[in-house]
Amino acid sequence: MTVQPGTIVALSTEDCFAGKVRGLNDLPSQVCTFPFLNPVTGPVAVEGAQPGDTLAVHFVDIVPARDWAVSATFPQFGALTTTTHTAMLHEPLEERVWVYDIDVTAGVCRFRARNSEFTIELPLDPMHGTVGVAPAANEVIMSITPSAHGGNMDTPELRVGTTAYFGVNVPGAMLSIGDGHARQGEGEVCGTAVEAAMNTVVVVDLIKGCAPPSPRLESDDFLITTGSARPLEDAYRMSQLDLVTWAGSLLELDRLDAYQLVSQTGLAPAGNVVDTNYTMVGKLAKSLFGGRQAYDGMHDRLAAVGAEYLRVR
Amino acid sequence: MTVQPGTIVALSTEDCFAGKVRGLNDLPSQVCTFPFLNPVTGPVAVEGAQPGDTLAVHFVDIVPARDWAVSATFPQFGALTTTTHTAMLHEPLEERVWVYDIDVTAGVCRFRARNSEFTIELPLDPMHGTVGVAPAANEVIMSITPSAHGGNMDTPELRVGTTAYFGVNVPGAMLSIGDGHARQGEGEVCGTAVEAAMNTVVVVDLIKGCAPPSPRLESDDFLITTGSARPLEDAYRMSQLDLVTWAGSLLELDRLDAYQLVSQTGLAPAGNVVDTNYTMVGKLAKSLFGGRQAYDGMHDRLAAVGAEYLRVR
Amino acid sequence: MTVQPGTIVALSTEDCFAGKVRGLNDLPSQVCTFPFLNPVTGPVAVEGAQPGDTLAVHFVDIVPARDWAVSATFPQFGALTTTTHTAMLHEPLEERVWVYDIDVTAGVCRFRARNSEFTIELPLDPMHGTVGVAPAANEVIMSITPSAHGGNMDTPELRVGTTAYFGVNVPGAMLSIGDGHARQGEGEVCGTAVEAAMNTVVVVDLIKGCAPPSPRLESDDFLITTGSARPLEDAYRMSQLDLVTWAGSLLELDRLDAYQLVSQTGLAPAGNVVDTNYTMVGKLAKSLFGGRQAYDGMHDRLAAVGAEYLRVR
Amino acid sequence: MTVQPGTIVALSTEDCFAGKVRGLNDLPSQVCTFPFLNPVTGPVAVEGAQPGDTLAVHFVDIVPARDWAVSATFPQFGALTTTTHTAMLHEPLEERVWVYDIDVTAGVCRFRARNSEFTIELPLDPMHGTVGVAPAANEVIMSITPSAHGGNMDTPELRVGTTAYFGVNVPGAMLSIGDGHARQGEGEVCGTAVEAAMNTVVVVDLIKGCAPPSPRLESDDFLITTGSARPLEDAYRMSQLDLVTWAGSLLELDRLDAYQLVSQTGLAPAGNVVDTNYTMVGKLAKSLFGGRQAYDGMHDRLAAVGAEYLRVR
Repeated sequence: MTVQPGTIVALSTEDCFAGKVRGLNDLPSQVCTFPFLNPVTGPVAVEGAQPGDTLAVHFVDIVPARDWAVSATFPQFGALTTTTHTAMLHEPLEERVWVYDIDVTAGVCRFRARNSEFTIELPLDPMHGTVGVAPAANEVIMSITPSAHGGNMDTPELRVGTTAYFGVNVPGAMLSIGDGHARQGEGEVCGTAVEAAMNTVVVVDLIKGCAPPSPRLESDDFLITTGSARPLEDAYRMSQLDLVTWAGSLLELDRLDAYQLVSQTGLAPAGNVVDTNYTMVGKLAKSLFGGRQAYDGMHDRLAAVGAEYLRVR
Repeated sequence: MTVQPGTIVALSTEDCFAGKVRGLNDLPSQVCTFPFLNPVTGPVAVEGAQPGDTLAVHFVDIVPARDWAVSATFPQFGALTTTTHTAMLHEPLEERVWVYDIDVTAGVCRFRARNSEFTIELPLDPMHGTVGVAPAANEVIMSITPSAHGGNMDTPELRVGTTAYFGVNVPGAMLSIGDGHARQGEGEVCGTAVEAAMNTVVVVDLIKGCAPPSPRLESDDFLITTGSARPLEDAYRMSQLDLVTWAGSLLELDRLDAYQLVSQTGLAPAGNVVDTNYTMVGKLAKSLFGGRQAYDGMHDRLAAVGAEYLRVR
Repeated sequence: MTVQPGTIVALSTEDCFAGKVRGLNDLPSQVCTFPFLNPVTGPVAVEGAQPGDTLAVHFVDIVPARDWAVSATFPQFGALTTTTHTAMLHEPLEERVWVYDIDVTAGVCRFRARNSEFTIELPLDPMHGTVGVAPAANEVIMSITPSAHGGNMDTPELRVGTTAYFGVNVPGAMLSIGDGHARQGEGEVCGTAVEAAMNTVVVVDLIKGCAPPSPRLESDDFLITTGSARPLEDAYRMSQLDLVTWAGSLLELDRLDAYQLVSQTGLAPAGNVVDTNYTMVGKLAKSLFGGRQAYDGMHDRLAAVGAEYLRVR
Repeated sequence: MTVQPGTIVALSTEDCFAGKVRGLNDLPSQVCTFPFLNPVTGPVAVEGAQPGDTLAVHFVDIVPARDWAVSATFPQFGALTTTTHTAMLHEPLEERVWVYDIDVTAGVCRFRARNSEFTIELPLDPMHGTVGVAPAANEVIMSITPSAHGGNMDTPELRVGTTAYFGVNVPGAMLSIGDGHARQGEGEVCGTAVEAAMNTVVVVDLIKGCAPPSPRLESDDFLITTGSARPLEDAYRMSQLDLVTWAGSLLELDRLDAYQLVSQTGLAPAGNVVDTNYTMVGKLAKSLFGGRQAYDGMHDRLAAVGAEYLRVR
């Protein structure tokens, strides 16, 4: 599928288990087949996108496609368990599935404890864990890995109203989207979120040149950077250095002045601390920038396009 | 100084440079004398505190004591520079001082770039970088190190309205407070915040037993855990594991159910990524807990004491 | 090229700069074109190799193909410099090339300092930095990345007389070899070794099943494991856990008894601490194992084949 | 105890369990009392030692004091287990004790598996895990922590024939020695070595000035550096940077030429990957240095003093 810059694209995505975990007894290690996990929808080629350009993807709508979603522990995956990399002598933790009820109208999902009567409604905050373009250097990488091309960053910032900016590595950019989450905590500590199939609408656009070192995001209120690496402090360094670079560029500050300003105003939530690379997020309030706009106001333009789409739909 | 549990303590603290950096030419490496950095006020002994108990410290008031504050880069300190530990062949970054104007009435501090005309007012958000009790095992540790006893966690969560809980290691607990910041970004990326002398009021109280593995915090809206370690993912693990433990205990969930709930609802901002240990913070909204209160409602009681103090002052 | 198990394969490999750095003024960042770095020779398919099998590759001969070799610093690459991942505000270190004279007959290479008259002869110890099979999960990964499939482990243990064992991921295994080093320190701290084109002879063979989690090596004197990951302690954990597993299996020890024995007898040198994954190596003296042989004596058989090849050549 | 530079000091040290683990049923967590672990003998003050000076400690003799030694797993301690820092949801591994027979005359210790009939004699290679001076900045640190002052580096390089160099932080230097090991693998992966009380003889001497950033060692064949930090790559960076500094100084190379030479000739074994800081070791063969001697030949002089002591004893 090839689209022109400025096109609205409606797509649907399966959940990270390819829809195979549907009940409490569907243990992922039994019903899923490695490596067919974390499927993505795409690629969507964008006409005219060339290496070095920047692809803008604005999230207009992300709606759970079913009235249920699932989460699970998975052997040797997660932040508080031995893994194939943080290799230890412990037996794996118990593999356990949770099924959530999704009520899109009420805007909630319901958590039910497995080993007690506890249950609670949590607000929906739909997002995509995996969004990215084709990687550089002819690499083909499992969608679970977040890196410079995007991928499975698993940050809750990738929600409706956010514009994501990716450096283009191949002609057409080749956008893919997957791994919808009805909601997610920062870090995704157990390894999975409230995993949901999604119906999603994005607007894609193209900025010539300007490729950022790692994906950048923009919401109505924040400029947001990402860094994906191990150890986690390197992910932090990457995200903060790009915050310094971005702020310095927009405000015409030298690197040390920008470093200082970011030090006093930057936010630094975890994205994921479970995937093959960890992701840290850096955020600066747009109020710092006065009228100066990133990418010549791309975010506002795409947000307007999205708003109009939702109005007339 | 020894106080009874329940006592309101008013104290003043010097800034992390011991007040010696007062102008643009006061380079910290020249005017400060190692190891006389990051001075703390204290210790305050709390009557009856014994090892294994929990000291509660509620921050009633934190007010900058001067109409200026400072920040600086410091050779081989900070997250985006070679340090003595992340040892490299690079020459140190430039050492540069910024002086901020503080306007307590307006609630702002003013940043002035050093190498351009840029200037901006930032909201005051006063907090203490360093709060802690005497360490365990007869150790004497520089106040710059955050660890199980507290210390220089450098998280902006330690602001007015927050109650901090520390496991007691020695009779009297021996509370110390310092390193006031007029405001700070998450991670404190350049190594220093808007460093300010402070006039601070706390209420201290005692909970018998219940010592947490690392300091916990509580605000009106959040239960908050901390982990201080290197690498940063270990700090994340510590903070999230204690979030799982705390939530599981309050909600009577088994560990995996609590792990799942935290995965979907926890927040995970960086504290500092510059000190001798890094600090990660875990947060859960108190709305998750219904009427269940941590520490039998200690936070609310201390907040009420603080409010009354401010009312009659 | 497809070969039968048991085949001797003679091949030649270019250096990591694809032969483009030939003199002191050939700065890699100018004469090399990303991503065309670290070329490998192959793939060689091995008849009958199936996923889950183990490919054995014995190094019979590794001889520098030219009378010179090169090394260089490269911007943002190496262990004692800021990189794209350990992202900092420093300017890159100077890019500098060193040309070594290679004297195969004398078994030495000559280092010449660039900024003084110092020069010294170092013993040749030829090896391959990059050896591996096709990765799992249909991934295509730059040869610079070491991982479960092998790749750019950059350990000096991969020298003549060593047998390497790789888990097979695709039919035919698809062996590739490159990145010859006339010699290398442990860790490859500046990012490059004494980079040399090589004429290399290997014997390849096949073991049904038994795929190790990461490449294993065997010399006449040691059983050797590898782990490639970040941070470096995870690479250490992986290599040591596999040492525990291997020793436990050969000696019929339970996991804790094997853990104990490895703790007192294992060696743990760094492979590389510069690549996209770091590599740690674990070693156990074969004297610990009495007559028990790994893989039914595969190493000894291949070594005999190699010796015979060299005798009659 | 205060001694003159040049003095031979004979001392005895208890094992890391303070001698309380004597049989298979003496579980450390039951018979030892935190924090009274890893006792050290000392401090020995050296006349004239001032901050900034370098203390030289040559190991003349290290002999196990008993005909047995012990090792053990310990809950939440070791490299292949969850710990208080690498915090996870797993239950602790089994706590298990191994008792080794020590035969000083034969030069061996005997390992006996606990869960099978396997037994093997291992060569004695006596060393001290913990050697250091008083820390800087008035800190008091548990002896288990290795850092700039030395401490529990747990490297097998600290054996007879080695000279250790420590930067002096307080008048008299205040040397302490403990944690004898009958032998140890690199990394000390299970957390304990073959723990033995020792009778040890050292010669101490003083070098005015020249304090290294972290302890340096010297054997007859190698110059050796150490770095103690987390994550492990930072320990590697520290040890390798000091190797570059030391080699550059002795050979009068600029930093990049020294970096290059170390890259091709340095060794990098793990010290420990279990303690509160990890330790990496860097080694350069003294053959690289021609006649140039570190510290004006201090090692050779102390080795001669030690040899004479052993001859006449």
